[in-house]
Amino acid sequence: MHYTAEHRLDGALERRFTLGDIPGILWTPTNAPAPTPLILIGHPGGLHRMYPRIAARARRATTHGFAAATIELPGAGDRPPSPTTEQARADLQRQLRTTGRPTDDAVDRLVLPLVEQAVPEWRTALDTLLAQPHIRGPVGYSGGIISIGLRLAATEPRITAAVLFAGSYVPRSMLTEARDVTIPLHVLLQWDDEGNDRRHALDLFDAFGSTDKTLNANTGGHTGVPEHAGDAADRFFTRHLT
Amino acid sequence: MHYTAEHRLDGALERRFTLGDIPGILWTPTNAPAPTPLILIGHPGGLHRMYPRIAARARRATTHGFAAATIELPGAGDRPPSPTTEQARADLQRQLRTTGRPTDDAVDRLVLPLVEQAVPEWRTALDTLLAQPHIRGPVGYSGGIISIGLRLAATEPRITAAVLFAGSYVPRSMLTEARDVTIPLHVLLQWDDEGNDRRHALDLFDAFGSTDKTLNANTGGHTGVPEHAGDAADRFFTRHLT
Repeated sequence: MHYTAEHRLDGALERRFTLGDIPGILWTPTNAPAPTPLILIGHPGGLHRMYPRIAARARRATTHGFAAATIELPGAGDRPPSPTTEQARADLQRQLRTTGRPTDDAVDRLVLPLVEQAVPEWRTALDTLLAQPHIRGPVGYSGGIISIGLRLAATEPRITAAVLFAGSYVPRSMLTEARDVTIPLHVLLQWDDEGNDRRHALDLFDAFGSTDKTLNANTGGHTGVPEHAGDAADRFFTRHLT
Repeated sequence: MHYTAEHRLDGALERRFTLGDIPGILWTPTNAPAPTPLILIGHPGGLHRMYPRIAARARRATTHGFAAATIELPGAGDRPPSPTTEQARADLQRQLRTTGRPTDDAVDRLVLPLVEQAVPEWRTALDTLLAQPHIRGPVGYSGGIISIGLRLAATEPRITAAVLFAGSYVPRSMLTEARDVTIPLHVLLQWDDEGNDRRHALDLFDAFGSTDKTLNANTGGHTGVPEHAGDAADRFFTRHLT
């Protein structure tokens, strides 16, 4: 892990880093007693493009006394493009335009390889982040592609609570994996999200094995998560990581 | 409106009253600047039996600076019993035991007459409560039989925000009425509530006409609403009534 740039923000330190050839960003609160819990900030890929929204979520975390970190997804941003992922994404988007919903096969071809490649990278990032002197567990995972969050929540024992955003398609084969998720969950659902199958999202919420799970659904489209729903997610992490 | 008993509580004054032959309870905060907003506390009927849960919700309201009030439902508690309601309730409960779900007809026979009789009573109570010198609007409605809350929210313009509890059966004819509800809504759903049709509850949430509506669904049965969900409902009222 090599730090490549550093910005002092009001109450937080933002550091860019590389982990091998994977770029990432780490935010640490400057006025919280170290070491701090950590929230992994998921996203759909493209750290430059997504920076404003990712940074806003990270700053909420540091305000509540948590460190926050993210890494670039495979094939996204400055990482080498993946022709098969690009083809699968184009196919899925074409299906959305023409029929309004993608086939299971298109979802599988886009999401499953991404999950297979990304999840070990996030686990490696976690190894490195938790070795930093100012960061300790517990660890939360927040948002991003829900299938990546699902796999991480199901398989990474250091993640003890997760906020998942029902905002993308989940391969049907992963519904059974949801039973293996037993940590406290807070699931955000935008009720009118055009890029999401609401019924499928509700089935997934039902499938999670967690005994402590909350669905927070709000009117509005994909990017219209209301401020109070962000506040509720913050409080979820405060309950479970402190 | 005649006050019949008065208890000073820590930070609140609890007064029993009668409105005609309908018993009720009013809680007012003693340390908030009067006049205060008002929350109507719904319940399934039976003020004696339900008192601990109703009073706990009322005390949450007074803690947040609101007055809270409730009245007995028709045919419940100390009010004259209604043989047709009792028969309809017995029929519905028998169907629940034998087939696991009531017929639409059984739901209609139990709920529709109750809504028709209760809603005007709550509106009359509202007239009287808002005439008290220490109470003003805005007015919120909270919980109880969801069909009563739905009808009040759809037809009573003085109610400006409602917390509804998806915990009882709603006549199918009232789904269309849900379109007329346009005030901010916060709907609590216990995901594993045996006495509730989850799919029906989700359809109802979808049907509400409000552009500002939140579904807060949690694992657990009818009475297992987690503390944090109660807190979220409190915050909803604080956002909309203050």
